[in-house]
Amino acid sequence: MARLGVLRFLPSQPMLLLVLFVAADAAGKGDGGLRFRREDGTFKVLQVADMHYADGLSTPCEDVLPEQVPGCSDLNTTAFLYRLLRAEEPDLVVFTGDNIFGNDSSDSAKSMDAAIAPAIAMKLPWAAVLGNHDQEGTLSREGVMRHLVGMKGTLARFNPQGVEIDGFGNYNLEVAGVEGTLLANKSVLNLYFLDSGDYSTVPSIHGYGWIKASQEAWFKQISSSLQKHYTSEQPRQKEPAPGLAYFHIPLPEFNNFTASNFTGVKQEKGISSPSINSGFFNTMVEAGDVKAAFVGHDHLNDFCGKLTGIQLCYAGGFGYHAYGKAGWSRRARVVSMQLEKAVSGEWQGVKSINTWKRLDDQHLTRIDSEVLWNRSYN
Amino acid sequence: MARLGVLRFLPSQPMLLLVLFVAADAAGKGDGGLRFRREDGTFKVLQVADMHYADGLSTPCEDVLPEQVPGCSDLNTTAFLYRLLRAEEPDLVVFTGDNIFGNDSSDSAKSMDAAIAPAIAMKLPWAAVLGNHDQEGTLSREGVMRHLVGMKGTLARFNPQGVEIDGFGNYNLEVAGVEGTLLANKSVLNLYFLDSGDYSTVPSIHGYGWIKASQEAWFKQISSSLQKHYTSEQPRQKEPAPGLAYFHIPLPEFNNFTASNFTGVKQEKGISSPSINSGFFNTMVEAGDVKAAFVGHDHLNDFCGKLTGIQLCYAGGFGYHAYGKAGWSRRARVVSMQLEKAVSGEWQGVKSINTWKRLDDQHLTRIDSEVLWNRSYN
Repeated sequence: MARLGVLRFLPSQPMLLLVLFVAADAAGKGDGGLRFRREDGTFKVLQVADMHYADGLSTPCEDVLPEQVPGCSDLNTTAFLYRLLRAEEPDLVVFTGDNIFGNDSSDSAKSMDAAIAPAIAMKLPWAAVLGNHDQEGTLSREGVMRHLVGMKGTLARFNPQGVEIDGFGNYNLEVAGVEGTLLANKSVLNLYFLDSGDYSTVPSIHGYGWIKASQEAWFKQISSSLQKHYTSEQPRQKEPAPGLAYFHIPLPEFNNFTASNFTGVKQEKGISSPSINSGFFNTMVEAGDVKAAFVGHDHLNDFCGKLTGIQLCYAGGFGYHAYGKAGWSRRARVVSMQLEKAVSGEWQGVKSINTWKRLDDQHLTRIDSEVLWNRSYN
Repeated sequence: MARLGVLRFLPSQPMLLLVLFVAADAAGKGDGGLRFRREDGTFKVLQVADMHYADGLSTPCEDVLPEQVPGCSDLNTTAFLYRLLRAEEPDLVVFTGDNIFGNDSSDSAKSMDAAIAPAIAMKLPWAAVLGNHDQEGTLSREGVMRHLVGMKGTLARFNPQGVEIDGFGNYNLEVAGVEGTLLANKSVLNLYFLDSGDYSTVPSIHGYGWIKASQEAWFKQISSSLQKHYTSEQPRQKEPAPGLAYFHIPLPEFNNFTASNFTGVKQEKGISSPSINSGFFNTMVEAGDVKAAFVGHDHLNDFCGKLTGIQLCYAGGFGYHAYGKAGWSRRARVVSMQLEKAVSGEWQGVKSINTWKRLDDQHLTRIDSEVLWNRSYN
């Protein structure tokens, strides 16, 4: 699949001292970009959450059935990923953190290389964000992200240029319309990637990290700029292009669901979100374009629930060297966007966002298919 | 009181397109600045909340006792302000929004001039932020703020320069140490002023406005820069200088108190905060320097309560053409900072932050005195 690139790096923060600086080109087009398929007007993202990769063959599986224990290792994670990539042929693979389990890894770079290897071997574009365990090995948080952005086939970026921002791995990707159509040079789908941190460094706040104000401001400005471009520049579109956000740690709003208003399961004792609410959910609501946010972190939760117009989705745990539930299959989430087709037959903007999960069983069983967003219903 | 100025305008946001720009001087010192008093090492701020000023003599009082009705008008608000300024002789007066009640004003600029007049007449430095009613008259929200920053004696600023930021009237002020001491050229107290908005413009979110991500990022960066300057540059200080934040609409966290853990009263049915939490409280906790935040908006709440190291304080309603409670005096909040004194007798940094309220009764009764923060206790 040849893809034309539209990468975007927006500065969102100021320099703190008297400086003269050049903001990065907001409309810069990179190579290796993403585009909807001409044949069926789709774009498919596979989310892989919490691989917890360590040292491969010597790293045992956790929480599998007794008969699965012998010979079970990180390589089962690798095998599952290869099978999935062949079965789904995604246009983009997104690794949403805890890609490696630093504590049990003897070499963070090697672990990461092994974890991501199937996507690279199959020449699929991929992106990644950090979780709370990626930096626990031989590389710091910054080091892990620097390693990731240097790997083959990656669309991940370290951070926007010329911007002071919290975390490592905040960036966005644009997905262009079908080649040869009016939207061929516009981003009809916007993907946002954020570093949700690891642990609080504020003494009075316990628990996990959170998305900071600097990241929210950066997100808000990119979103605003993308929306403006999509609706004001020729060919002008009536509504902003939909967006998807990917990060590791669930927002406190993931707690707002009961069994009656979500699809999937909620098997953990609680939602392991930060102990405080830094407001990113609300910032997404304000921005208006993000239709769904995808996280990992809680391996035994795999639901999607809709709140104030935004679907909040877990992927469910993927890796075998990660806590899980024996007998409850490791899994991944697929999200597939479908373009609208004009009477003329030409592909337009995004009509719907659909999702399902795939289980690591004999048939890679597809479960919990649902429509996350549909333009006609909004 | 001659005062040497240290004004600061920090850019916190990026330009959205490829531009070359000069960020404002972070360490720029303006004129008309603020400084602690040599004689007693104090700096005193008077907060005036919700004057609701309209057309002066022809604008009647609301919610006063029957015997107070005849002849009662905006001029009673003016009289109260004059009495208070004479009694307290503050070093700074802060008007925290709903300074005018636009709906009942025939000329917003004139109403604002009349509302602020006592501070100007007494040549006291003053600052102001917007509430949710200031823009309801002949001037837009932007127009009201532009008018305010053009008035005599004001230290209010429109917004940081070279920065894309939400709202009108986001700025900070520095208060220098005592002249002739080692801290004479350092800001030993930092004041932050933010526009908390008026009403939500997001269809899916009802109710009042909120402090946006762009404002939080701006605040965070100024705070970080001030802290760095205070602790890293000569003479280096052990701890960051304390900060105070002033804005109009209470944060959702004002709801976290019961009668047993606050000082003052909570007489309204609820806290009229925005319906969502945009995370500014948490951003203040993260920043670490703000010891107290002061709001208005709810005229019948006048308490201070401490949460995660930050005092959240109301001032109580000041204006007579504002809803109130007959027989419950209009009031204002005073905050007074005390410097530490070295054995040598030289004034140091801030030792404590103290507060009390003043009632508009015969004796301008002082109530609810308390220590909001004390360095030795932290």
